[in-house]
Amino acid sequence: MARSTLYQQVASELRRAIYSGDLGPGDQLPTEADLMTSYGVSRNTVRLALGELVNEGLISRTPRRGSIVRDRRPLLMYPQRELTPQPASVPREAFGFAVSQEGREPSQVIEVSIVEPPEDIAIRLELPDGGLAVVRRRLRFVDGQPYNTNDSFFPHALVRDSEIVRPGDILRGANRVLEELGHPQVRVVDDISARMPTPAESSRLELEPGTPVVEYVRVGYDSDDVPVRVAVSVLPADKHLIRYELERR
Amino acid sequence: MARSTLYQQVASELRRAIYSGDLGPGDQLPTEADLMTSYGVSRNTVRLALGELVNEGLISRTPRRGSIVRDRRPLLMYPQRELTPQPASVPREAFGFAVSQEGREPSQVIEVSIVEPPEDIAIRLELPDGGLAVVRRRLRFVDGQPYNTNDSFFPHALVRDSEIVRPGDILRGANRVLEELGHPQVRVVDDISARMPTPAESSRLELEPGTPVVEYVRVGYDSDDVPVRVAVSVLPADKHLIRYELERR
Repeated sequence: MARSTLYQQVASELRRAIYSGDLGPGDQLPTEADLMTSYGVSRNTVRLALGELVNEGLISRTPRRGSIVRDRRPLLMYPQRELTPQPASVPREAFGFAVSQEGREPSQVIEVSIVEPPEDIAIRLELPDGGLAVVRRRLRFVDGQPYNTNDSFFPHALVRDSEIVRPGDILRGANRVLEELGHPQVRVVDDISARMPTPAESSRLELEPGTPVVEYVRVGYDSDDVPVRVAVSVLPADKHLIRYELERR
Repeated sequence: MARSTLYQQVASELRRAIYSGDLGPGDQLPTEADLMTSYGVSRNTVRLALGELVNEGLISRTPRRGSIVRDRRPLLMYPQRELTPQPASVPREAFGFAVSQEGREPSQVIEVSIVEPPEDIAIRLELPDGGLAVVRRRLRFVDGQPYNTNDSFFPHALVRDSEIVRPGDILRGANRVLEELGHPQVRVVDDISARMPTPAESSRLELEPGTPVVEYVRVGYDSDDVPVRVAVSVLPADKHLIRYELERR
């Protein structure tokens, strides 16, 4: 689909150095001249690579100080990748996979319960009146810092006999379990909006005052177009960037 | 792709009544029983239809008062639709088309200038050092209210002899002009994040205090994978909902 050009390779190596901590917040990157020498590329290639990192919020560039690693390192999310079947050799759920790909350490706390869900969720799941859902509420950490929350709702009738209803992590991911139950998600609808956090969210996610959150709701449908999962993510705006790649049909 | 079910048709008619003003802010919708009778559908269909409108932020439902049209009516944006070639009978640019589809009145103020763009834009456009861009800065209105801004940057070398460089509206849209120049956008990358507005944005968009904005940046590439347009939209969070529909490949 996309070309993986020289500059993207250079960007990728620098990104890894930042995420691995070899380059920490406030550190200076090598100069353009040094990068040209060490990678054997042109100045333009170096600039394009650094530009990528600026756009991702990883570094800032000033004429005097050069390129500096920023304190705030937003997590780049690719909602489309969750739809691509992962190789069987990578039995991880999507968040853990994306974070560890960046050389960072994911962890999460999960609470599982059976609930009569809020009306907007019940509607999205097309539940009958009084219908039950299993909700897996996750607080996710990156390198030990609270990062975002993800509450995934499933129709109870569908998942009652599966791992989804049991407490604890599902290493291969709940989407894989849905597949095994004969309900792979073949279509999703993603709704993205932003708002100020609730006081509970501020405290749970340790937000700085004045930090908005992105609310990202994904409804997944199986091949009969029946909704099988509603996932509500609350993403602190200073720590997340969502990216979609689309091709003209 | 998606089924257009009975409930979606009911939702669509109610949506139109709201957008047309037949049902204004604070107005009560007919009861579930009345809607069942007038559309000849089941209670479940009515509930699903009303649920759609709740999810879109158009109405709120309370047990006592029934369904009420909300004051705040977020504009539902489908970034994918801009990639679908529009019928030739609809010579409108994407924003105007989407708004008028909803029965609302779009308008905009455009300023066109030739600039040395900010570094992040220059990088996304892969411009050489000191390279120029044409920027079309738009302040967009819905029903006379300022709604959002969209600044579109194009490589000057590419569009210098086209309508894009001239002031004023392009009825068929700049994307159509890029096509005519032999550079249709066949792939786009969308970056979505949120933040608090700058003071200039607050005043220009007449924002209520404490309203975050969604920053939505689309880079469009032609069939040689050359970036031909960078569009930066600033969307007040209380007035916009972005929706993507994805299918598993």
